Parts: sequence; structure tokens; C-alpha cells
Amino acid sequence: MRDFLPEDVRRRQYVIDVVRRVYERYGFEPLETPALENIETLTGKYGEEGNQLIYKVLRRGEGASTGETDLALRYDLTVPLARVVADNRGKLPKFFKRYQIQPVWRADRPARGRFREFYQCDVDAIGSTSPVVEVEMIAAVSEVLQALGFKDFTVQLNHRALLTAMLDAAGVEAAKHADALIAIDKLDKIGHEKVKEDLVARGIQRRAADACLSAFEDLNAFDAMVRKSELGASASANVAAIMTLADATPAAGHVKFTPRLARGLSYYTGAIMEIAVEGIGSLGGGGRYDGLIGMFSGEQIPACGFSLGLERILVVMGERAMFSADVDKSGPDVLVTIFDEMTIDESLRLASELRGGGLRVEVYPETLRSGKDLGKAFKYADTRQARFVAVLGAEEVNLGKVKIKNLSTGEQQAVPRASVVSALAHRPSAIGHRPSDIVDRPSDSE
Amino acid sequence: MRDFLPEDVRRRQYVIDVVRRVYERYGFEPLETPALENIETLTGKYGEEGNQLIYKVLRRGEGASTGETDLALRYDLTVPLARVVADNRGKLPKFFKRYQIQPVWRADRPARGRFREFYQCDVDAIGSTSPVVEVEMIAAVSEVLQALGFKDFTVQLNHRALLTAMLDAAGVEAAKHADALIAIDKLDKIGHEKVKEDLVARGIQRRAADACLSAFEDLNAFDAMVRKSELGASASANVAAIMTLADATPAAGHVKFTPRLARGLSYYTGAIMEIAVEGIGSLGGGGRYDGLIGMFSGEQIPACGFSLGLERILVVMGERAMFSADVDKSGPDVLVTIFDEMTIDESLRLASELRGGGLRVEVYPETLRSGKDLGKAFKYADTRQARFVAVLGAEEVNLGKVKIKNLSTGEQQAVPRASVVSALAHRPSAIGHRPSDIVDRPSDSE
Repeated sequence: MRDFLPEDVRRRQYVIDVVRRVYERYGFEPLETPALENIETLTGKYGEEGNQLIYKVLRRGEGASTGETDLALRYDLTVPLARVVADNRGKLPKFFKRYQIQPVWRADRPARGRFREFYQCDVDAIGSTSPVVEVEMIAAVSEVLQALGFKDFTVQLNHRALLTAMLDAAGVEAAKHADALIAIDKLDKIGHEKVKEDLVARGIQRRAADACLSAFEDLNAFDAMVRKSELGASASANVAAIMTLADATPAAGHVKFTPRLARGLSYYTGAIMEIAVEGIGSLGGGGRYDGLIGMFSGEQIPACGFSLGLERILVVMGERAMFSADVDKSGPDVLVTIFDEMTIDESLRLASELRGGGLRVEVYPETLRSGKDLGKAFKYADTRQARFVAVLGAEEVNLGKVKIKNLSTGEQQAVPRASVVSALAHRPSAIGHRPSDIVDRPSDSE
Repeated sequence: MRDFLPEDVRRRQYVIDVVRRVYERYGFEPLETPALENIETLTGKYGEEGNQLIYKVLRRGEGASTGETDLALRYDLTVPLARVVADNRGKLPKFFKRYQIQPVWRADRPARGRFREFYQCDVDAIGSTSPVVEVEMIAAVSEVLQALGFKDFTVQLNHRALLTAMLDAAGVEAAKHADALIAIDKLDKIGHEKVKEDLVARGIQRRAADACLSAFEDLNAFDAMVRKSELGASASANVAAIMTLADATPAAGHVKFTPRLARGLSYYTGAIMEIAVEGIGSLGGGGRYDGLIGMFSGEQIPACGFSLGLERILVVMGERAMFSADVDKSGPDVLVTIFDEMTIDESLRLASELRGGGLRVEVYPETLRSGKDLGKAFKYADTRQARFVAVLGAEEVNLGKVKIKNLSTGEQQAVPRASVVSALAHRPSAIGHRPSDIVDRPSDSE
């Protein structure tokens, strides 16, 4: 688990703000749920492996000594959503579209871009089976990626029922479908031959394994296989509709039908999708899950969701230098110094005025008792990457002026107090700071 | 613990954004720390009562069966800050000013405006003993409250050394000071007589208790008592400097020297402060703590902090109707409907265009197969508090127009497709929605 220092938080906040802005425009509304859920809400939802990765909280008071647990840390954002929908029947819109950007916790071994505390950015749309839901979701996610500066992404699209129909046609018995999907999911990573071995090792006949793998080589063959069942034909039409309609959205040109896409989670029932970036892998994925909410509410409510991995996006954007200088800009616009005990109030007033003009202002808290102190203040201004240093001595106060030094140009001038806000606010942001020369103490000449 | 539905999140986000904007202008920088800390980091920092309220997380793997714990949920934002400062020596600025807005967890009994998961908004300034630090902090907190719309707040100011000097002068032995402060802290709640009983019950002599309570009645008497010691005299000068300098900031007129202010936490060493709002009580508090960081880093580093209670602020702002309609505005600007299967793509294109114009757009996902369906869509638009409904039938597509209904006026018109974004973007926000009449299906006349 990590601390986020200011430069990290600024980047995270920037990405989160972009995600939020785009999702708001798509009519998704914000939801937040508590970090701690009742343990029964989480257990049994993520498979045996998932169960092991849940952080469990010790019961307080009486149960404490026996090691009993009653609460657990949020493991994803989908199960809490399903609980909220069940808890708030009648209070939520018929077509509830929510986004949720919060951390989740998994007691996993950390790896590159994978942490035990990490943020997910989820959108889910509840209440409709229309393909418009998938299209809008793909469009929203594409627009998020475009707004962040990604151009080379693909929205891989597939459908669980297509995979079912294909496996049936290939002669894989229904009881082996889940096993087969786990093997197929690794095609990109380990290749054709190893997946075939894996399929056979999982008890699937060699002929069926061959038939199924060759279907991924030839779209027409795949299509012919899935159309053998009504379920497959209808899923095929659904995928075609999503592909066509996506062309009318910002996702145009990014969606690619990808028969081998399987997605790990067992609760998907319809279209499934994943964002792939060349040379990077997945930045997130999702799909339709028409059964999960029923586990909480008792009533079947259709749903479709997509989860973006914030940590992965941040790592890639960092590696590709996709953050503008503006996002990474830290430090104050102006460092206001305090000349002596008698002018502290004037310096504070100046700071207030500059802040009133929207500037980020830091007051150097120590009084400058000597030229050496002033040197320290300027050195500090450099390490803080301040754009300007303001010096306000007794002379300047009397003249109604402020001495301003631009740390990127080294330029120094006395600016009338009344126009200092506009003078600093309208200057172009300084780029490429260099260590400043030390100016004279303004009243040493007195 | 609570779920935050969209209307809750919007209010929370609004307050957090205001806090962030003001703190940024004061040169505070964002920090975030993980929810889980090593258990040793937290234990022994919050007193015996605090220890009981820490949520402890069960060890994974081997220790799991024995009920062993190794991690714990963040209890406040100050101890994590002290750890971060110790962990990042040399990486942080000499005068590190950070703000942190994150949830903390306490296994407390919930009460009005008090929850087991709640957000704190902390600012802390590390590295300087200058009173400018306290002044800037009081100014920043005052500006936050003003920006949120609070006018009737007081920043109560006191100093731990003043209390020490007063208790000495009143004849309370040093070993009883902590006890005495706990009793005095209740003066506002339970009154003079009961505090006196409490002081006596805690083993403080009746004469000393009398002397100490009468000091709070008369500022001059208090002043005379504290000036008997050098420590008291210097603390008095410190408080006077803070009061005077605060007048040069947005805190002017809000700061009040409050001798009876004691603050619960034991780690304060200098000025202490609390925000009081008439009829409401405290919205937050803070003070100087020059010893705490040394517990982690081994080196004494001066520090001063202030914590605003987000939950309390939200409750009060809700009760006082301080949120503008703009903050509470939920629902889309436009609900785009889908006329039939042939025009889905046109409706999606329209939605994209409107979103490109910055509008919040929801697409009603179901195709309108009948006037009854259209009625449902309009009813849905009303429940969602949409400002406009857009209907785009084959006729409109052919004419290059969109039928737009304003749900607050009931006005309905066909707008040329090319100008629909500007037409909707520039209309004043509709206030006071009323159930809309149902418009005719646009192409029923065909």
C-alpha cells in the first residue's frame, strides 16, 4: 500500500476529474458506499480464490478475543452496487446509471501496477436489456480514454452466448464450458499450442479442442458454428447491433469483435468487453450481468457495467509522458516573504489579495532578519518551483509598491500595489525554472 | 456506515471541492495515505479509549486461524501524516504544508452527525514555529467557511501554556493538570457548578478549583494569573500576535480569545483553536503540536494543524438550506429518446453532439413503439428532473430538425439540428419542474 505525495495526488485527481466529467455528461450519477461491508455480503461472490483475498475485520468488544470477524473491506464496486440497488428499491430511477470511483482492497501479492489498495472507476447501468446500454457504455469509456489522450486503444467485444454456442458446436460438453473459457482466456498470453494442451489437460477431447481453437482463426467459421443454435444467432445479432450503433458514437473505429475474449468473472450473461492498448494489455473491462442483482434483491434486474483500472491508467500515462506540465505543476504561484516584524500584517494582506485573485500563494513563515535569510527564502522558492517571489519592505509599503521577482526570467521590478494581482495573474505560466539569483534586501539601501 | 446516493455525493463533492480550492490557494498541497496502517503505527497514539475504537484487520494466511491482527484502519489523519513526514525525510519541502481529505474509521456508537466511517479535512503545516503558521491556518479555515456560506462562526483561540500557567497560579499541582483540563473542557456543556464538583472529585483542592474557575469569569484576572510565569507571559504574547495578525486576513472579526478552551487531545503544545457556530457547537479544531512528529522521526519538528469535520458541516448546511439549487441539481439536461429501430443511430449522434456541447445527456434506452411508450419516457424524464426531452423521428431526421420539449414551461418546438446545442446550452436552467404534458408522437401524423 502506498502513500500518495502531492505530485501523485495531482495526477490521480486529474484523471479522476476527467473520468467524472465524461461520465456525468453521459448521465451517470455518483454513488459512494462504505469501505466496510458485512462479511456475508462479500463472501461467496468472488469464487474460492477471491474469498481468500478479502480483508476481514475483527469484531469489537466481546467477540474480539475469539478472533471473530463481522466486517470486511470492499473487494470491488459491483457487489456493493447490487446491495445498494436491493436496499433502495423504489428510491432509484428505473434506469439507474451510476459511476463510482473508490478504492477496493485485495490481500494479493503486489505486482507492477497491481496493489493491495487500488481505485476502480466503475460505471453500471441498471434496468434495461437494450443494446443501447452497451453502446453508451462503450462510447463513454472511449471518450474517457480520448479525453486522457489515448488514441491507440481497442474496445474488444464478444458475447458469452457466442462462446457457449461455439463450444457446443465444437463438441465441448456443457459441464466443461467454464474450464474451457479459463483456458481460452489465456490465448493472447501463452498461444495456441499451450492452450490446446491446457484444454486437453482439463478433460476436453482433442478433437473438440482443435475445433474450438480453429474457430478463433477464422471469423467465418466461428460465425457458422455459433449460428447453429438460436442462442448463438441471437447473440450474434446483438453483437452486430452494438458494433453498428457504436459507429454513431465517439467509439467509432475503436470497437473490434474479438471471439477469443472470454473475461474471467463468472457472472457475465451477455456482451463482454475489454479495453486493449497496444503493448500494454488491458486497461479495464466489463459486460452484461443480468443475474447478479437478483442474488440480493430476489428480483431479476438486467445490468451492464464497465470497470476502468485507475492504477493501470496512471502507470501507462506516466510511462508515456501523457501528463501536461499544468497537471504536474506544483508549488505556489507566488511566495510572499516577510521583511520584518513591523510588516508581517502587510505581507499577510498582500497574500490575501493575491489569493483573492485566484493565485496559489505561500507565505514564507520566517521573518528575514538578514540578507542570508533572504537568500534562504529564495532558495526555498526555487525548491518549491514558485513562479514569483514578492518582497515587501518598509520602503515598498511607504511607496505603495511590491518588489516582484520572476524566478524563471530573473526579472525583478517594483509593481504598484493596486495592480499586483493583475500583473501576476495574467503573466504566462513560467516553464523551466532555473535557480534564481538572490536579489538585494530591498531596504538594505536605506 | 452509510451509502451515499447521488444527491448525497453531489453535496459532499461540492464541499470537498470548496475546501480543496481554498486550501490550494493557501499553498497547502494534497496528500493521501492508505486506509490500512500497520497496527503498531496506530496503537498508543490515541489514549486507552482511542485504542478500543480502532478497527483491526485479521492477518491473512497462517495467522488467520489464531485471530492475530497486523493492520488497522486509519483512525485520524494526523498520525499518518507524522509517519509520512518521518518516512520521507529530505523529499518534502522544509515547510511542508499539506491538506488531506479522506475517511477515517472509529468503532464508536453512532450519534447525530457522528458516524463510524467519516471524512476529515485536515491541514497541517510542518517546520516552523512562527505565529504566521497559526494565522494562515485560521485564515484558511475562515475562508473555507465563508466560501461555504457561513457567517456566524467564531474561531476560539487559546494556548496550552496559558492554561498551564493559570493552573499553576491557581494552586493546581502539575500532576493534576491533565485531569483539570478534562473537567474545564466541559464548562460550556455542564456549567460552572458541576465543573467545580468535578474538579474537587478529581482531587483538586476546593480553593484551587475556585481560583481557577473565577479566572474564566474575568479576562483581567486570567491575564494577571498567567503573567506570573515566564511561560505564561510568552504564551500570552504569542496569542496576542496571532490575534493582531489575523486582523490582516479573511479571519478578521472572527477570532476570539477563549481562556476556557482546553481541547481534548494530549499532544498539543502551543496555540489551540476551535470553530464554534452559534447554536451548533464545534465544526472542527486544531492547534500546535511540536512533539508528535518526533515520536516517529526521532527529531523534534514543529507542526500545527487544523481538522474540519466534513460530516458536521454537511449536516448543518443541510439543516440551514445552504446548498444552492445548482449543487442539488441532479438528472440530465436532456433526455434523448429513441423513436424507432431505424433512428437509434441518429439519436446516439444527437446525444454525442449535445454532450460535446457540455450538456449532461441521458439516452432513454428503450425504443418507443407506441404513444404509451412515449408517455412512459416523458414520465421518466420528469422523475429524473430532466430539463428537456428530445424526440427525433424519421420526419425530423428528414427535415434536419429535432423536436425539443422544455419540461418546466411545457413549451415544445422543432429546432434545426445544427443549432440544437446552442439552443439548449444557453437556456436558463429550469427551476421548479412540473409534471409535463405528453406530446404527440412526432410522426403519428404521417
